[in-house]
Amino acid sequence: MRDIPFSALRVDGERLCRRIDELAAIGAIDGGGVCRLALTDEDRQGRDRVCEWMARLGMRVSVDRIGNVVAIRDGLEDTAPVMTGSHIDSVATGGRYDGTLGVLAGLEVVASLNDAGITTRRPLAVGFFTNEEGARFAPDMMGSGVHQGALDLEQMLASTGIDGKLLGDELARIGYAGATDVGQFRAHSFFELHVEQGPVLEQENIAIGAVTGVQGISWTEYRIDGTSNHAGTTPMHLRHDAGYVAAAIAVEARRIATDMGASQVATVGAIELRPNLVNVIARQATLTVDLRNMDETLLQQAEQRLAGFVDDIAAGEGVKVSARRLARFEPVAFDGAMVALVQETAAELGCSCRRMPSGAGHDAQMFAPNCPTAMIFVPSEGGISHNVAEYTEPRQLEAGANILLQVMLRQAS
Amino acid sequence: MRDIPFSALRVDGERLCRRIDELAAIGAIDGGGVCRLALTDEDRQGRDRVCEWMARLGMRVSVDRIGNVVAIRDGLEDTAPVMTGSHIDSVATGGRYDGTLGVLAGLEVVASLNDAGITTRRPLAVGFFTNEEGARFAPDMMGSGVHQGALDLEQMLASTGIDGKLLGDELARIGYAGATDVGQFRAHSFFELHVEQGPVLEQENIAIGAVTGVQGISWTEYRIDGTSNHAGTTPMHLRHDAGYVAAAIAVEARRIATDMGASQVATVGAIELRPNLVNVIARQATLTVDLRNMDETLLQQAEQRLAGFVDDIAAGEGVKVSARRLARFEPVAFDGAMVALVQETAAELGCSCRRMPSGAGHDAQMFAPNCPTAMIFVPSEGGISHNVAEYTEPRQLEAGANILLQVMLRQAS
Repeated sequence: MRDIPFSALRVDGERLCRRIDELAAIGAIDGGGVCRLALTDEDRQGRDRVCEWMARLGMRVSVDRIGNVVAIRDGLEDTAPVMTGSHIDSVATGGRYDGTLGVLAGLEVVASLNDAGITTRRPLAVGFFTNEEGARFAPDMMGSGVHQGALDLEQMLASTGIDGKLLGDELARIGYAGATDVGQFRAHSFFELHVEQGPVLEQENIAIGAVTGVQGISWTEYRIDGTSNHAGTTPMHLRHDAGYVAAAIAVEARRIATDMGASQVATVGAIELRPNLVNVIARQATLTVDLRNMDETLLQQAEQRLAGFVDDIAAGEGVKVSARRLARFEPVAFDGAMVALVQETAAELGCSCRRMPSGAGHDAQMFAPNCPTAMIFVPSEGGISHNVAEYTEPRQLEAGANILLQVMLRQAS
Repeated sequence: MRDIPFSALRVDGERLCRRIDELAAIGAIDGGGVCRLALTDEDRQGRDRVCEWMARLGMRVSVDRIGNVVAIRDGLEDTAPVMTGSHIDSVATGGRYDGTLGVLAGLEVVASLNDAGITTRRPLAVGFFTNEEGARFAPDMMGSGVHQGALDLEQMLASTGIDGKLLGDELARIGYAGATDVGQFRAHSFFELHVEQGPVLEQENIAIGAVTGVQGISWTEYRIDGTSNHAGTTPMHLRHDAGYVAAAIAVEARRIATDMGASQVATVGAIELRPNLVNVIARQATLTVDLRNMDETLLQQAEQRLAGFVDDIAAGEGVKVSARRLARFEPVAFDGAMVALVQETAAELGCSCRRMPSGAGHDAQMFAPNCPTAMIFVPSEGGISHNVAEYTEPRQLEAGANILLQVMLRQAS
C-alpha cells in the first residue's frame, strides 16, 4: 500500500471543502455564515453530521459528560494518541471556518491515511469540544477546559445561558450528555488548525502561522444599579444614571487599550439598559468587558485600571456597581519543539510561515499544560471573523490541512 | 342649591385618591407603580374605567380618530368649553400620578360641581390623550398634538412601536379608533394639573407651581453601522466598533449638558447593540439622545455640538451613522394671564406658590398655540417620576385639584 513516502502524502483539498460546505449548510444564515450557538438544535444537527463522518471513517466515537466528542483511529501501539480538534459551535453571526476547519481537517487527515492504507504507530484522535465560543454559555473554551481538568464539570453543567437555560439541561435535551468521564484524557500531543481571525497573515502574504501562544483573556460583566427618573425634570447633578456609567466604562475600556498599546485589546460587545426608553433615565445597565493581552502582568494592569475607573465613576454618579468574572485565562505559551515542528514542516512543503501569537482563545490552550501543544493558522481574508463574511481560500485551507497531516504523522510515527 | 359662594367650593380629596388608587390597580407593577404603555391591554382597561366614570358623571363622551377621549359637561351657553386633561398611558415602569392626576382631578372638579348643583356658563371638558409618554410609539404628546392640529393623523397612525406593531392597528385592536375628527377642536382655555416630576417644589417646601412654559425637546435616534469582528484578534486601530461609537456619543451627551449648565439636560435612555455578545465587536448599535432646554437657541447649540461630535467620531472609527429625528418641540411659553390666575388663586386658597418652567413635555403645550393655556404643578417626593416610587401626598393632590376647580370655575363663569 505504501507506494509513496509519508512526507509526500497530501490531503484531498476538494473533499475537505465539500465537508466544510456541507456542515455550513446546518444553521446557515444570510451572507454565507452560520448560527450554531452551543447546544441549540443547529449545534445538535452539526454534531450528528460530524459523528456520522467519524463513524464512516472507521473511528471509535465517544461522548463525554460535558458533550465533547472524541473519535479514535487505532495505531499499531495502544498508547496515548496524537490528537487534533477544535469546535463546531459558532457565535450568533459566525463564519463557516472558525473551529469547523480544525475538526474537518482532522477528519481529512484520517481519510487521507485511510486512502493510503497507512496505520500510524500511535493512535490518532480527532475531537470537537462543547461551547468553545462562550456566546451562549460562559465561560468559553468550556468543553476543552473540562476535558483537560481545568474547569469543574458540575459547575459548568450549572451554567446559565443568555436565554436562561441550564447547560446541563440543554446537553441532555440535544442528546449529547455522554457517559465518558472527563478530566482524565491525556493526549501524546495536540495540534489545532484554525483560521487566524486577524489580518496579519494576509497583510504579510504568508501562508502559515506557527502559533507561539495565546493571549490572556479577562471577561467581566458589570451590573450597574442607579435610579430611574424623568429625562426632562431631573437636573444633571441629581442623576444616578446607570446608562451613563455603562457608556463611560465602555469608553474607558477603549482608552485603556489605546493607551497601553502593544497586544492589549479591549471590547465592550454587550450593553443592555433598563427600562431602555428614550425619556427615562436608566435604572439598571449591564455590560461586558473583554480584555486581552499576551503578557499576564500587563493584563492585570489593564484590569486594575478599569476597576479603579469603575469605582470612581460609581461613586461620582451615586450608583452601585457589581462585577462578575465571566472568564479569566492567563496567557499560554505553546511547546517550543512543537512550534518548531510546524515551522520546519511548512518549509519542507514550500509554504511561507511566520511565528505569531494568537489574539483569540482556542481549545488548544487547555491542552498546553498537559501535553506538547501547538497551533497552525491559515489566513483570514480582511482579518474578518465572528462575521458571516469570514473567508479563507480553498488552497489556503488545503495548505493548512497538509501541514496538520504531516505534523501528526511525524508525531505518531 | 347654591348655599356657598363659588370661591368656597372645594373638591373631595378622598374621592380623588380613591379613583387614583383604583386606576393604579390596572397595570399595577411591583413597588406601587404601573405599566400602561399606550394602546396595550392595560391601557384599554384603564381607558374603559375612566370612560365609565365620565359617563356616570353625566358627561358626553366622544373618542376621536387617534383615540383621544373627550367628555363634555354642558354649560348654560353652547360655547367653546373650558378644558382640562392629561393622559393615562405610562412608561414601562411608571408611577401612579403622572398624567393620571390631571385626568382624575378633572373628573373630581365635575363631581364637585355635580354635588353642589352648579352649572357653569361655559361647558367644561375633561380629556385624556393618546400616547403622551412616547414610550411605545414616537413621538410623545402624540394624541394632544393630533387633537390640536400640530401632528398629522395619518402619519401618526402609521407609527411603528418598539414591539414592531402599528399604532393604527393597536388603536383598532383595543377598540379606541374613534370616529370624531381631529385637528378642529378649540377650547376656550386649557389647564393641566400635573405632578412636578422634579425636585424643586419639595426642596423649597412650596405647594403649587404656576408653570410658565415647557422646555424645548429634541429626540434623536442614531443608528451606527460598523463591522462585526473578533474581540481578540482585531487590533484596536483596525476596528469599526458600533458599540464604542454609541458609548462615546452617550458620554458626549452628558458632557454637553454639564458644560452648558442652566436648563440644558441630556439623556441617553436606550442603547442596543448587535449581536450583543461579549467577544464580538458590535456591527450595529442604536441609541436615543434626549436633549431639552428652555431656550430654543441654546437647544439648537446643543444639537449642533452633538451632531458635530457624531460626525467626527464616525469618521474616526470608520462607521456609518444615520440620525432619525424622533421628536422636536420648541420651548413653549404659557399665557401670562392664565399663569397669573393660577398664582392669584393659590394665594386666595392659602397655598404657597412659585412660578416655574416645566422640565418635561406635557399635553398642555399642544393647546398653547390655540387657546390660553397654563399648568399647575404639585410636588413630587424626592423629585422622582417615571419610576414606581413616584409619590405625592394626598393633601398635596387635593390642594392641586382645588386650584384646578377654582381656575376652571373662574374661566367658565
